Amino acid sequence: MNKKNCMVAQSGGPTATINASLAGVISGTMHSQAYDTVYGSVNGILGILHDNILNLSDLIEKDPSNLETLKHSPAMYLGSCRFKLPDFMDDDSSYNYIFKQFEKLNIGAFFYIGGNDSMDTVLKLSNYAKRIGSDICIIGIPKTIDNDLMVTDHTPGFGSAAKYVASSLLEIAHDTFIYAVKSVTIVEIMGRDAGWLTAAAALARNQYSDAPHLIYLPETDFDKDRFLTDVKECLRVRNNIIIAISEGIHDAAGNYINAGESQEDSFGHSQLSGAGKALEYLIKDNINVKVRSVEINVLQRCAAHLSSKTDLDEAFALGEKAVALSEDGVTASMVTLERTSNSPYTVAYGSAEIKNIANEAKSVPREWINEAGNDVLPAMLEYLAPLILGEPDITYQNGLPVYMDVSHLTAIE
Amino acid sequence: MNKKNCMVAQSGGPTATINASLAGVISGTMHSQAYDTVYGSVNGILGILHDNILNLSDLIEKDPSNLETLKHSPAMYLGSCRFKLPDFMDDDSSYNYIFKQFEKLNIGAFFYIGGNDSMDTVLKLSNYAKRIGSDICIIGIPKTIDNDLMVTDHTPGFGSAAKYVASSLLEIAHDTFIYAVKSVTIVEIMGRDAGWLTAAAALARNQYSDAPHLIYLPETDFDKDRFLTDVKECLRVRNNIIIAISEGIHDAAGNYINAGESQEDSFGHSQLSGAGKALEYLIKDNINVKVRSVEINVLQRCAAHLSSKTDLDEAFALGEKAVALSEDGVTASMVTLERTSNSPYTVAYGSAEIKNIANEAKSVPREWINEAGNDVLPAMLEYLAPLILGEPDITYQNGLPVYMDVSHLTAIE
Repeated sequence: MNKKNCMVAQSGGPTATINASLAGVISGTMHSQAYDTVYGSVNGILGILHDNILNLSDLIEKDPSNLETLKHSPAMYLGSCRFKLPDFMDDDSSYNYIFKQFEKLNIGAFFYIGGNDSMDTVLKLSNYAKRIGSDICIIGIPKTIDNDLMVTDHTPGFGSAAKYVASSLLEIAHDTFIYAVKSVTIVEIMGRDAGWLTAAAALARNQYSDAPHLIYLPETDFDKDRFLTDVKECLRVRNNIIIAISEGIHDAAGNYINAGESQEDSFGHSQLSGAGKALEYLIKDNINVKVRSVEINVLQRCAAHLSSKTDLDEAFALGEKAVALSEDGVTASMVTLERTSNSPYTVAYGSAEIKNIANEAKSVPREWINEAGNDVLPAMLEYLAPLILGEPDITYQNGLPVYMDVSHLTAIE
Repeated sequence: MNKKNCMVAQSGGPTATINASLAGVISGTMHSQAYDTVYGSVNGILGILHDNILNLSDLIEKDPSNLETLKHSPAMYLGSCRFKLPDFMDDDSSYNYIFKQFEKLNIGAFFYIGGNDSMDTVLKLSNYAKRIGSDICIIGIPKTIDNDLMVTDHTPGFGSAAKYVASSLLEIAHDTFIYAVKSVTIVEIMGRDAGWLTAAAALARNQYSDAPHLIYLPETDFDKDRFLTDVKECLRVRNNIIIAISEGIHDAAGNYINAGESQEDSFGHSQLSGAGKALEYLIKDNINVKVRSVEINVLQRCAAHLSSKTDLDEAFALGEKAVALSEDGVTASMVTLERTSNSPYTVAYGSAEIKNIANEAKSVPREWINEAGNDVLPAMLEYLAPLILGEPDITYQNGLPVYMDVSHLTAIE
C-alpha cells in the first residue's frame, strides 16, 4: 500500500486536554498502515497558509517520552488561531493554496482539533474538497471547556475544566468557612452562552458542605430582585454563602450583567468588569454583609496539573479514532463521544456529519435547572459526575509540572 | 508525672499548610509525656472566650487517618478570627477569662498558629502570664503566605503559595503563547506590603519560557512611564509578554496603583478594582496591543491540592517542635526555621523571643531586586527554589481532593 502522510492542527481557545487529542492523532498515525509522517500546522490553519509546519513524527521518534508529556501539557502545542476561512464561492484563493500544500506533502487526511468555530473550518474544507473532487479526508476532533458542541455527549477539555471548577469551589468553601461572620462570596466561571461549566460547581458539594448555595446559568434570565431575595433567604440559615455564576448571565432583555465604565482609576482611564463584580456591588449596596467576588481565571482552561484522567483518556482516544476513521475514508465529519452507560460510566467513540454540528450550540436543558433558576437538579449532577473522575500521573521537576517545550511558538514572527 | 492538657488555635488568613502545623501539635502532644488531651479553640482566641472548644485528641483517636487528612486540608480546621486583644493595662477582663478557662481545662501550654497579628496575641498573652505569675507556656507557630515574619527564614504556607503562583504562571504562559499576535498579560498576586509571593512568579521560568518578563514588587516605587517603556521594550523582542505584579504596588508618594470608582455598572453602583485592572487600562490607552489582567485569586492561599511537600513537612515539624519546647518550659516565643544549608537544602527548627517578632514585618531585601525595579535577581531565586519542592500524596474521591469535614464551622452562631 502506498502510504500517505497526514496533518493535524489546533484552533480556538485552550483546554487542558487538547494536546491529548494531538497525542492521540500522532499515536494513531504511528500505528497506522495508511500513514507515514504526521505533520502539524502551527497556529491552526494559518500554519498551512504561512508555511509553518512541524514534523510531529520526528518529535516523538527523537524522544518517545514526548508523547506522554504532550498528552499532559496544557493549551495548544501547535498554537492556535482565530482565523475564519472566507466562503470559497466568494474567494477560493486560500482553499486553493491549502490543497496545494496538502498535495505537496502527500496529505491523505487533515485533522482539526477545536470548538465551534473550528468545526466551521472543517465544514468549509470538506465542502471544498468535495467540490474539487479531492479524496483528502477532513475530520474534526472536538475540544472546548464550554461543552457546547452538538451530537457528542460532551467535549474533551470540559471534564478537566469541570474538575478544576469543582475543586476550586471546594477549596474556596474551606477558605470561606473560617470566619464566624456573615459573608457572601461570588465565583464567576467561564461560559458566555452555555452554563455547563458553571453547573459543574455543584460537584463541590459533599457531606459537610453544600456550597455553592446558589447557581445562576445563562440559560435562564437573571433578575436582580429575585437574586437579592435568594441571597437574603440563604443568609438566614447560613453564615457563609457561596454563589456560582456564569460570566454570561443576562437579564430578560438579554443585557449582560456586568460592571461598566469607570472614570476614576489611578490614571484616569476607563475600565470594564464582569458579572461577579457587578453582583458584588449589588449586594454591597443592598445587604449589610461582607462580600467579595472571585473570577476563576484562565487557569480553569489550562491547569493541566489538575486535569481529569477520564477527560485525558477520552481526548487521546478521539485522536486515535479520527485517524482510524480516515483510514476507512470517513470525511466531512467530527468524531464524537456517545455515553453508553452512566453507571458504570462507559462511552463509545463514533462520528457524525460535520454539517449537523458546525455553527450550532448546545445549551444546558432547562429541565436540568430548578424552577427558580438558582440551582441545578440531580439529572445535571448525574451527567457531570463521571467526567471529572481520575487523576493523571504528572511529572514534576523543580517543584513544577513538566510540560512540552513550546519555544517554537514564542519566536517573533 | 502529673500530666497537663494543652490547647491550640489558629488565626489570620488561610494557608494551604496551616492545618499541617495543627496536625504537628496534635501529633506532638500524642507522643508527649507531659500532655494528656489537646484542645482546639474554634475561631482563634474567640473560642476560649465563647466556650467553643473541641477535643482534638478524640478526633484523632476516633479515626487515626484524620491526622493525615488534616495535614493536607486547606484553611483553618479550627476556624480563624481577626480579633485583637486589648492592652491588658486598659482592660484585663478577657485575659482574666482566658486564663480561668486555661485553669479549668488544666492547660499547661497554649499554641497559636498565625501571622503577624496573631504573634501580637502571643506577646500579650505571654506578658499577661508573666504578670500574674502563670507558668502556662505561650508559643506562636508562624504561618502566612506573605512570608513577612521576622527572624524565621521563611513562614509555613509561603512555600505552597509560591508553588501555586509559579505553577499558575507557567500554565498561563502556555495559555498565552498560543496566538501569534502581540499581547500583554498582567498577573496580580497577593502581597500588600511584601513582594515575596510575587517574586516567586520568577520560578516559572524554564529552558523554553522566560515568563514572567517583568516583575514589580511593593518594595520599589512604581512609575507608570517607566512601566510603559519596559513593556514597549519587551514587545520589541517578544510577541507575548507576561507581567507579575504585587497587589500592593504604589507610586513614589505611596499611593496604591488601583482602579477607582465606577459609575455605570449594570445597576448604577460603584466599584473598585485592583492594580492589575489599572495597568491593563494603562496599557490599553497607551500601547496598541491585546491586553488582559488576571487576578490570582484566593486559591493561591488555599489550593492544598498543589501544596509544597517541603512546606507541609516543615509546618508539621514546627507544630511538633512547639510542643517539645513547651515541655522544656519555653514560653513567650515563636518557633522558627533556620536555613542551615541551601544546597542541599536543610533547616534547623528553633525558637525566638516573641517580642522580637510581633508587630514587625520583613520585606524583600532591595539587593535581591534589580536596579530597574522590574525583576528579581539570582539571589532571590536561590532563596525561593527549595521552598516549592515536592508534592504530597493527595487522596481523591469522586474526582476531588479529600479534606477534613469542617461542618463544625458552618453551624450558625
